[in-house]
Amino acid sequence: MLPWQLPGEAAEELDRAVTELGLRGVLLAGRPGDTFLDDPAYRPVLEKITELDVPLYLHPFHPLPQVQQAYYAGLPEEVSTQFSLGGWGWHHEAGIHLLRLILSGVFERLPGLQVISGHWGELVPFYLHRLDHVIPTSISGLEKTVSEIYRSNVWITPSGMFHRAHFEFLRETIGLDRLIWSVDYPYLTLDGTRSFLDGLSLDSAEKHKITHGNAEKLFQL
Amino acid sequence: MLPWQLPGEAAEELDRAVTELGLRGVLLAGRPGDTFLDDPAYRPVLEKITELDVPLYLHPFHPLPQVQQAYYAGLPEEVSTQFSLGGWGWHHEAGIHLLRLILSGVFERLPGLQVISGHWGELVPFYLHRLDHVIPTSISGLEKTVSEIYRSNVWITPSGMFHRAHFEFLRETIGLDRLIWSVDYPYLTLDGTRSFLDGLSLDSAEKHKITHGNAEKLFQL
Repeated sequence: MLPWQLPGEAAEELDRAVTELGLRGVLLAGRPGDTFLDDPAYRPVLEKITELDVPLYLHPFHPLPQVQQAYYAGLPEEVSTQFSLGGWGWHHEAGIHLLRLILSGVFERLPGLQVISGHWGELVPFYLHRLDHVIPTSISGLEKTVSEIYRSNVWITPSGMFHRAHFEFLRETIGLDRLIWSVDYPYLTLDGTRSFLDGLSLDSAEKHKITHGNAEKLFQL
Repeated sequence: MLPWQLPGEAAEELDRAVTELGLRGVLLAGRPGDTFLDDPAYRPVLEKITELDVPLYLHPFHPLPQVQQAYYAGLPEEVSTQFSLGGWGWHHEAGIHLLRLILSGVFERLPGLQVISGHWGELVPFYLHRLDHVIPTSISGLEKTVSEIYRSNVWITPSGMFHRAHFEFLRETIGLDRLIWSVDYPYLTLDGTRSFLDGLSLDSAEKHKITHGNAEKLFQL
């Protein structure tokens, strides 16, 4: 966790955390403020993350209040709350966050920046095909398509959502080189992991990749 | 199209359109106002749609301005525009619209109400598993789970998005009884339909369903 509100100090603290303490990555829960990390204010931190070659995990958090009000309010209180959080809203906002990084060209300026996206990619993988169609490079002004950037700079974890259809969609569209098995302890635990994985018809090289090989590579373990 | 802003008149006009003119369904582009159709103001129209046994197509449209500003603004102008429309934003808002109908209990009050959701379901099918987990009936207060309501009251069309991974996900999670082939003329046409369908390994009964049988049933053609 970094003091993102002070980007210069955040970059310094990251340097200390990685080079002195040996930490292997950065986690951001939601936004540091009203804007997302495509805001040029955060450029020094993203540059430092890239320079140190540690991944950035975009963890979901409470959506912006104006979105909460517009999309999730007005239902029974607990329904509104869960709909805006783990049911939908915070996943969606984490997906928006990642898409803004892609569309603003952050990964073309910092091609080494690697981002982790949980919960099978926070909805994004399921519309990459659409994004490529509606926002081609002729509109985005980027050298690569949205899905090409995604496959170069994003790693996906299931966050304990054991659902075979998600896995199969990701295997088909992204492949297994960027999939890192994870649960969501203590909410979702390792219970059921073995039987889930055993049901996926993975060969041993594939199982090696998603259960530890990809993580070892990304975190340089 | 109905004058939704005047729900009483909208219900009357729908009656005339169906019983006198023989029309077979209702299309709504976006929201009639600042709220979605779970707003009790629209109850008379939804009741009339159900009574007349015609489906309601929730077509995407421009997202609410506060969401547009919070999530899609600040990128190059044409990128912001497409991101907020056909690239993501309007699909997402159409998905939110449907989820609000489900979570507010509209389909438990009106179990006969049938809704059509385009573009492979506007993101919703890809998180039904999550919604069931995070908003179970003990929280929603509904008799059926979100995905059970979805499979009883929603019909899905691809809207010309020819992508095998989407089709396979839907076949696996929803089945083929509520899938209606569609393009998005004049933007996406029938070009490529035959080769796409031929590549899906459908038997003739399945092909019959999605290319015309399901539509004939839903629209009583």
